[in-house]
Amino acid sequence: MDELTVRPVAKIRNDFTEKFGIPRQAGLAEVKSLIVFEPEFRNDDALRGIESFSHLWLIWGFSKSFGKWSPTVRPPRMGGNKRQGVFATRSPFRPNPLGLSSVKLLRIVKTKEHGTAIEVMGADLMDGTPIYDIKPYLPYTDCHGDATGGYTDSLEGREVRVNFPPELLEKVPEEKRNPLLSVLTHDPRPSYQTDPGRIYGMNFGGMNIRFKVEEGVLTVCQVCPDSHFVNGDE
Amino acid sequence: MDELTVRPVAKIRNDFTEKFGIPRQAGLAEVKSLIVFEPEFRNDDALRGIESFSHLWLIWGFSKSFGKWSPTVRPPRMGGNKRQGVFATRSPFRPNPLGLSSVKLLRIVKTKEHGTAIEVMGADLMDGTPIYDIKPYLPYTDCHGDATGGYTDSLEGREVRVNFPPELLEKVPEEKRNPLLSVLTHDPRPSYQTDPGRIYGMNFGGMNIRFKVEEGVLTVCQVCPDSHFVNGDE
Repeated sequence: MDELTVRPVAKIRNDFTEKFGIPRQAGLAEVKSLIVFEPEFRNDDALRGIESFSHLWLIWGFSKSFGKWSPTVRPPRMGGNKRQGVFATRSPFRPNPLGLSSVKLLRIVKTKEHGTAIEVMGADLMDGTPIYDIKPYLPYTDCHGDATGGYTDSLEGREVRVNFPPELLEKVPEEKRNPLLSVLTHDPRPSYQTDPGRIYGMNFGGMNIRFKVEEGVLTVCQVCPDSHFVNGDE
Repeated sequence: MDELTVRPVAKIRNDFTEKFGIPRQAGLAEVKSLIVFEPEFRNDDALRGIESFSHLWLIWGFSKSFGKWSPTVRPPRMGGNKRQGVFATRSPFRPNPLGLSSVKLLRIVKTKEHGTAIEVMGADLMDGTPIYDIKPYLPYTDCHGDATGGYTDSLEGREVRVNFPPELLEKVPEEKRNPLLSVLTHDPRPSYQTDPGRIYGMNFGGMNIRFKVEEGVLTVCQVCPDSHFVNGDE
């Protein structure tokens, strides 16, 4: 049997406290995350030399709530109404629920609580996601400038203009304003939902953000504390 | 517990019948491989749309013979004498023995014996390696032209000139000549071995190739059948 049991070497900590609002791929939002090692893997030696790389790969686990795999899935970028083979997508409904993301390495940080950790930018992982492997990004073997992206080539990025009234933006801690704006710019709605009257709610970093999208403009209507959020809660 | 047990969705079939000689990263040698699905995952639907991508990611398992992980390793590209943190390398001696390789998708093939399979170019996996996931390469999120490669930036590719006497090359089946030459060009010796008198032996596609390397020239001395090789052997 070629089964393999993997265990987390680290977990990610960030402001994505629920699936809704997480960018569809790595690198799309300017949100910082902290890679916190599991106690068994808190070993500075294992990171020796890593700071000389600009990008890292994370191999991580999709939430178990996704359940069973499916041979075909409906990728949101295709409007959610066309079926593609699961191996032709990055969908979570895979035989083995492994995610793959490249992130920007910002710095190695020494934390009091968690020992040495890695601060990265652009992760598309929910807070608490287990990470099974961290590898350096090697441009000479990982970067294919000539690669063609299949069906994703013909689909434009769906950016929206964000209207965030100043009196609401003031309720957001200053260091979270730009990250939140970059998440909203990518239109967090599932792409098959285009109901203009609907109010959506998204949790981000302890806040609940309510907004609507009309004619390419996302307008924030309300910012209130996320009642489900406990800071530092595991 | 966040342990995860993964099972192979496919196995790779190619001419790399032993570790020695496998290129150090994907894409370095022009060797074709066939991705053969496990019976449970032989489902044409799961591949729908995949042929529109030029490159694929494979997440695969390092041979169990690598054994225990080590916080630091000595990458062959650094001459094998400098220790680096394991997360700063693509070494197999990782906490979770997962490999990551991007390969070129050549075509989808219908085979009599194995059903629908994927022919790819450039895999750095040994024949029979279990593959846990196959994902499309998405240039907009996977290709970082600005990435810097840490210590690998300062190390040149170690290519050698190959002297393959015609009477020996004739013993190699025609379709295997170019792939074999591309493997030899990348100098299959461990990079910390530079003993000019030594004769090395490498198995490739049922043949045992003996060669030496002197002053940047690899000279093939002998080609004979690999006695351990059984064609199609699992």
